[in-house]
Amino acid sequence: MSLNQSEWFTEAFQGKTAFSVRYSRKLYDSLSDFQRIEVFDTEPMGRILILGGCFMVTEKDSFVYHEMLVHPAMSALKEVRKVLIIGGGDGGAVTEVVKHPEVESLVLCEIDPLVIHACKDYFPSISAGLNDPRVTIVNDDGAAFVANFNNEFDLILVDSTDPVGPGQALFEISFYESIKRSLRHSGAAVFQTESPFFMEDVFSETVMNLKRVFGSQTALPYLATIPSYPGGLWSFTFCSETCSPILAAPDSLQKRLVQNLKYYSVDVHRGCFALPVFVQQLLKNSD
Amino acid sequence: MSLNQSEWFTEAFQGKTAFSVRYSRKLYDSLSDFQRIEVFDTEPMGRILILGGCFMVTEKDSFVYHEMLVHPAMSALKEVRKVLIIGGGDGGAVTEVVKHPEVESLVLCEIDPLVIHACKDYFPSISAGLNDPRVTIVNDDGAAFVANFNNEFDLILVDSTDPVGPGQALFEISFYESIKRSLRHSGAAVFQTESPFFMEDVFSETVMNLKRVFGSQTALPYLATIPSYPGGLWSFTFCSETCSPILAAPDSLQKRLVQNLKYYSVDVHRGCFALPVFVQQLLKNSD
Repeated sequence: MSLNQSEWFTEAFQGKTAFSVRYSRKLYDSLSDFQRIEVFDTEPMGRILILGGCFMVTEKDSFVYHEMLVHPAMSALKEVRKVLIIGGGDGGAVTEVVKHPEVESLVLCEIDPLVIHACKDYFPSISAGLNDPRVTIVNDDGAAFVANFNNEFDLILVDSTDPVGPGQALFEISFYESIKRSLRHSGAAVFQTESPFFMEDVFSETVMNLKRVFGSQTALPYLATIPSYPGGLWSFTFCSETCSPILAAPDSLQKRLVQNLKYYSVDVHRGCFALPVFVQQLLKNSD
Repeated sequence: MSLNQSEWFTEAFQGKTAFSVRYSRKLYDSLSDFQRIEVFDTEPMGRILILGGCFMVTEKDSFVYHEMLVHPAMSALKEVRKVLIIGGGDGGAVTEVVKHPEVESLVLCEIDPLVIHACKDYFPSISAGLNDPRVTIVNDDGAAFVANFNNEFDLILVDSTDPVGPGQALFEISFYESIKRSLRHSGAAVFQTESPFFMEDVFSETVMNLKRVFGSQTALPYLATIPSYPGGLWSFTFCSETCSPILAAPDSLQKRLVQNLKYYSVDVHRGCFALPVFVQQLLKNSD
């Protein structure tokens, strides 16, 4: 069947597969200095944010991405006071982090101020954390910004887009080295590391580079399913020199759990690091 | 962007979301007594089988579905000699079951002989198990066929299509009761139970009905990600009066594991029963 362009938004991934959503209304369409930003209302996915033609946020499924970027590390670490988020202008990760009362300060470094404005206007509940008094917003290049710090943060979250356009610098080894230097010894960093299904090469190369910088036993990928992202199966990689998210005891994870989450739980924490055989093989090939 | 129909196959799910794959060649298009059967060659997903306009098998991702339908139960049960598969005419589940040498007989009850013919012709490696001498193929209505048995099978796998058209009878309570009666006391049944993301109602109603028939502690949903199926996150439900797949010891699972799988492992077994919070809530609402 054919999809009428005036009713459907389609993201074609590498010109080979495509995911489409029927929309009821286009609310916003703007060209920033970095990318095209679009917002649609849809029945099946709720309101959706499209950056550079790619699904970035949907009201239906983004809770998976935001919770899984944030809470495995927040639960595994013993104490988190200072947080840096690079990218993530939609505010979804910020909103999850500020649910933890122990957090004293959070810097969000988003290169594109227009993403933040659009999300404050059109996704008030996902971006709600941006209004928290502990949050400072910086509009800068994430790779340049993080180069300023040493032994500073308890947690750094790299909430990047794909490694093309504005997201490209966030997939470089020199960036990973800056992240490592900016972390306190007891801290951790979490990177979104793409889909092991449809982006095998980017996934395995990114994890390999993180293992090279952080150590092979201390860069640990984990998975969650996000239907609106290409391949559905999405990876994150947890990096810490001192904290193992796998060895964390269930009752210590439980103690640090915040209320009213929709995806993450102690059980999910323990399950998400169990990698399917083909994912383990992708990592073995890249060793 | 728009997708040219002569180059893309599109499955539109409930007219709201769509997944499309660019194809290089259409190999087969036939109308059986039950449904339209199409086969395409594609670059991103390999060869694909479409039944009634829906993705059923792809060379890229069907290993997830077939392994996860079969191996959690094969590993959790102590002994599996007699197996019945209802649906599954593509032969993928059969091919996984016959990897276990202890299996003495397997009956495949597929209503549509043309699906079997197409898969033998176009998916020789996925359907290879259909040629195993232990396998008997019956072309019958699964619900009618299973009503003939009592205390017969160690394992029954319900590899149905969606609950419309030929698959509808496989979502009725009377069918679940027949399945239960056909199982040996030490046996188990596994049902594909749709996506908790895009088919919340079918998922929760099906699992609720299975709990009603098999008992609330003995019908246990588990998850895997299959990118070509709507919602990506797919559920199966394990039902047994005597065997708990969750309490199975890792070394006993390991002992029963067959070689050369691409998705399932002992770790995956332990992780797949960890349900995200929203999935648990869907089940709670349906209690």
